[in-house]
Amino acid sequence: MAVYTQVSAEAAQILLDRYDVGHLVSMKGIAEGVENSNYLLETDRARFILTLYENRVDPADLPWFHDLLAHLYLAGSPVPRFIEDRGGHWLQDLASKKACLIEFLPGISVSEPLPEQARAVGAALAKMHVSVTGFEQKKPNRLGIDSWQALFDRCEHSAANELSAGLADDIAAELTWLVAQWPNNLPACAVHTDLFPDNVLFKGQTLGGLIDFYFACTDFRAYDLAVTHAAWCFSADGSVFNPAISDALIGGYSDIVRLEESEIELFLTLARGASMRFLLTRLFDWINTPPDAIVTRKDPLAFHRRLQFYRTAAADQLFGRR
Amino acid sequence: MAVYTQVSAEAAQILLDRYDVGHLVSMKGIAEGVENSNYLLETDRARFILTLYENRVDPADLPWFHDLLAHLYLAGSPVPRFIEDRGGHWLQDLASKKACLIEFLPGISVSEPLPEQARAVGAALAKMHVSVTGFEQKKPNRLGIDSWQALFDRCEHSAANELSAGLADDIAAELTWLVAQWPNNLPACAVHTDLFPDNVLFKGQTLGGLIDFYFACTDFRAYDLAVTHAAWCFSADGSVFNPAISDALIGGYSDIVRLEESEIELFLTLARGASMRFLLTRLFDWINTPPDAIVTRKDPLAFHRRLQFYRTAAADQLFGRR
Repeated sequence: MAVYTQVSAEAAQILLDRYDVGHLVSMKGIAEGVENSNYLLETDRARFILTLYENRVDPADLPWFHDLLAHLYLAGSPVPRFIEDRGGHWLQDLASKKACLIEFLPGISVSEPLPEQARAVGAALAKMHVSVTGFEQKKPNRLGIDSWQALFDRCEHSAANELSAGLADDIAAELTWLVAQWPNNLPACAVHTDLFPDNVLFKGQTLGGLIDFYFACTDFRAYDLAVTHAAWCFSADGSVFNPAISDALIGGYSDIVRLEESEIELFLTLARGASMRFLLTRLFDWINTPPDAIVTRKDPLAFHRRLQFYRTAAADQLFGRR
Repeated sequence: MAVYTQVSAEAAQILLDRYDVGHLVSMKGIAEGVENSNYLLETDRARFILTLYENRVDPADLPWFHDLLAHLYLAGSPVPRFIEDRGGHWLQDLASKKACLIEFLPGISVSEPLPEQARAVGAALAKMHVSVTGFEQKKPNRLGIDSWQALFDRCEHSAANELSAGLADDIAAELTWLVAQWPNNLPACAVHTDLFPDNVLFKGQTLGGLIDFYFACTDFRAYDLAVTHAAWCFSADGSVFNPAISDALIGGYSDIVRLEESEIELFLTLARGASMRFLLTRLFDWINTPPDAIVTRKDPLAFHRRLQFYRTAAADQLFGRR
């Protein structure tokens, strides 16, 4: 949530000169997204996001992201386009980093979604899962179940227990359970896996954009719905489940994609996994970020609470079947 | 250069509802300015900066900044206005911080100024010094000469010497010299004291805005010119003086304000003081910021090199008198 690499207006203009996008009139470093540096550039013709990829995004993955977004854009999904320069190049070198000029999408991210907004998100996610039909490129989920044990091993267990008594043992047991229960043959496709409210742009009740695809990968579509469910249907601290939002999100999704029986049966397992993924990455960041750092540490327990909810929830109830 | 306080779009809209400025359509946290949190808000009618004041700005000083900018705006200076809500209030409470909605000024900040841009900056600074005639409110310079010894005492001298052998002794001697030489009766007024290139917005060669007045105070107008000179007339690392930029800056200023003889005679003393101010604040931040922190530490020696330049420069030459 900061600008890591400084880019001067002169350097930005030199970059823009390669494109047919007009002349720079305003430039602001913006604090958002994963750990990239982002600038909002305004030319006399349009606005753009200039992204410089920092350590967290592997440049080798950029062509996959580009091709996915190009595919989704052509299929009518509200995703930003990578802009091509006059030579047809969308990937640039800038300030010793890989950089891309990306379409700016207006809209605001909601923090306390209304049911109609959650319904729109469910529908947009389902449309995305339909739209990627024919997108055959694969990319493994670097933060999928195969990564969780190693991530947990890199967290001091005593620090986890300091956060909440018994947390380390609970995570260890849950990981064992998840590995044993995790499916291997559900419908998979290109998925977002990070569709939190800050990655969805609204114009009023209308969904205007899905952004920040840098955790996108090939994984179960029902896992993507589970991540989105965990991201949208709880109070920020995870302590209060909102059934109206859940009904709207799952209803919006199900109107467009009819999940298979096995996906519904395994939904709570996937949701426990989704909770584990964010619990672990937040725990790792919590333990490894000094308390006085500029970056706000996000509470890992907010996802432990979600995990506890999914342990006792009933899938039939979430999917409106009783 | 980060967003410290998170503000949701819902909270921003509730704030905007107090104003007659339209409905929120886009909101981006922006990374700029001193240590405040800033958001670029776009409504269906205009764009604004929402600033939340963090620790570095004393809320008690905000009325002074407001009144200064209102005075300058009415006098035709290109400064942003504080927007008033329907009740005439420009100061708000938001997320436990004091907050203001401020006019957005387009334009870009140059990193490698052209002489014509430096001339425009000199002229704008002089016009500002003329425009504040009649603005009688006083505010001491918290980072003025009276503060430097105490600031230096809070820096580990061994750390200074690690940065450059003998630096601590050199600073100590310079501080003694500055205190002995510092004038007490030059023309004073409301001054900016931080007019670096990133605080000036250009539309091409035209100066479109002066921003970030949060170090503004009452001090010698020639000291403000000296700060601006140190900020604009050197390579970033302070090793190369640019006489063409200096001539343009001082020329642009002198076209509008005719400095008194004493101000020119003491200009190099003031410029050594200006160099000391940034040397010391950067040194303090350098020593007290972990090397792996997100915030880029700025090199203190870049202003030690400027100090060394001013020690041997000739004022007559800078002011084109020989």
